[in-house]
Amino acid sequence: MTAADQTAAGEDVPGEEKPWDQVTPEAARKLLVAAVEAFAERGYHATTTRDIAGRAGMSPAALYIHYKTKEELLHRISRIGHDKALDILTAAYEAPGTPRERLAEAVRSFVRWHAGRHTTARVVQYELDALSDDHRAEIIELRRESDAVVRRLLDEGVAAGEFTVPDVPGTAVAILSLCIDVARWFNTQGRRTPDEVGAFYADLVLRMVGAPQDR
Amino acid sequence: MTAADQTAAGEDVPGEEKPWDQVTPEAARKLLVAAVEAFAERGYHATTTRDIAGRAGMSPAALYIHYKTKEELLHRISRIGHDKALDILTAAYEAPGTPRERLAEAVRSFVRWHAGRHTTARVVQYELDALSDDHRAEIIELRRESDAVVRRLLDEGVAAGEFTVPDVPGTAVAILSLCIDVARWFNTQGRRTPDEVGAFYADLVLRMVGAPQDR
Repeated sequence: MTAADQTAAGEDVPGEEKPWDQVTPEAARKLLVAAVEAFAERGYHATTTRDIAGRAGMSPAALYIHYKTKEELLHRISRIGHDKALDILTAAYEAPGTPRERLAEAVRSFVRWHAGRHTTARVVQYELDALSDDHRAEIIELRRESDAVVRRLLDEGVAAGEFTVPDVPGTAVAILSLCIDVARWFNTQGRRTPDEVGAFYADLVLRMVGAPQDR
Repeated sequence: MTAADQTAAGEDVPGEEKPWDQVTPEAARKLLVAAVEAFAERGYHATTTRDIAGRAGMSPAALYIHYKTKEELLHRISRIGHDKALDILTAAYEAPGTPRERLAEAVRSFVRWHAGRHTTARVVQYELDALSDDHRAEIIELRRESDAVVRRLLDEGVAAGEFTVPDVPGTAVAILSLCIDVARWFNTQGRRTPDEVGAFYADLVLRMVGAPQDR
């Protein structure tokens, strides 16, 4: 990743809460932000706890006060990222409105997060295999829940006669996949803001479920 | 990546030419397959040329006969993968048929490759930043050409009155992105074969361009 195409992991995105605010104390938060940046740049396996401590301006001993292992840092990042993804989808699901309006909002906000936080999202999405077996099982369960929220939205849209979806589980996977991959290609120098990509993708997804905006 | 969810990088996929057949001699080909597997498992930066040679059952000295640097291996893998991706899209573009038939075939064959060769595709898609500046520029040019082929297909479909696409460049990016992300989630233990995912995605993409199969 070049420096130019990433948002710093700790940077503010307009309209979004500050990332990692829930992580305290401040030193633990700084280490987490440093870990996200190091993992995104060099990959989990090529990063040492010494690299992470150095990036946060701390000693390896100071790191061990907060995190016993490098895997604990990755797990914390992955857990916060996956909780956030599930929160975004659940909030859209539970909002008032038709299935079509709620699906559009789910896509808009999920894409906005993956674009605005693409450095974090890449670590969250691409380093699952580096988690311990227990941690991976926990994260996979969160992913199943996210998937289930989208499936429920599609089922409700089909039941309401708004959507035409021959394969609900397959379409749910494809919708989430389309949104997640934004983290791979999104570039802060590109022609669209995270909000604009979100709105554009909401339209594409409504087409995928047979409910185009212009109908 | 767990061993269970990857196709070995050198393994045959029914109906596909053997990968890396163009790489000769045999020792150079074995090293390339070993490099794909090592990069996919641990990431480029965490892999050494010694790891790759060991995996291929060769000495580091034998590796240096064929590849001067680890980056040369990555470049070779990336170049072959990107040439293949462009060939697949170009073949579909140049085939006889309506824009709708050719777009469906482009998606089917592009997805089949990303599913059937997902270990290779992950390395090709996720390790771009590890390439040298010259090599990255060369690969980005190939990606631009792939993008341009999809844009031309969309333009032709719009001109023929088959597609309704408000934003051709953005839709081309989204279509390729949807197909590429198959490499991230595809699992050989899943309920669909690469062919089946390809057919399903062709239908989703026709919906995205306002030309659903059932119309």
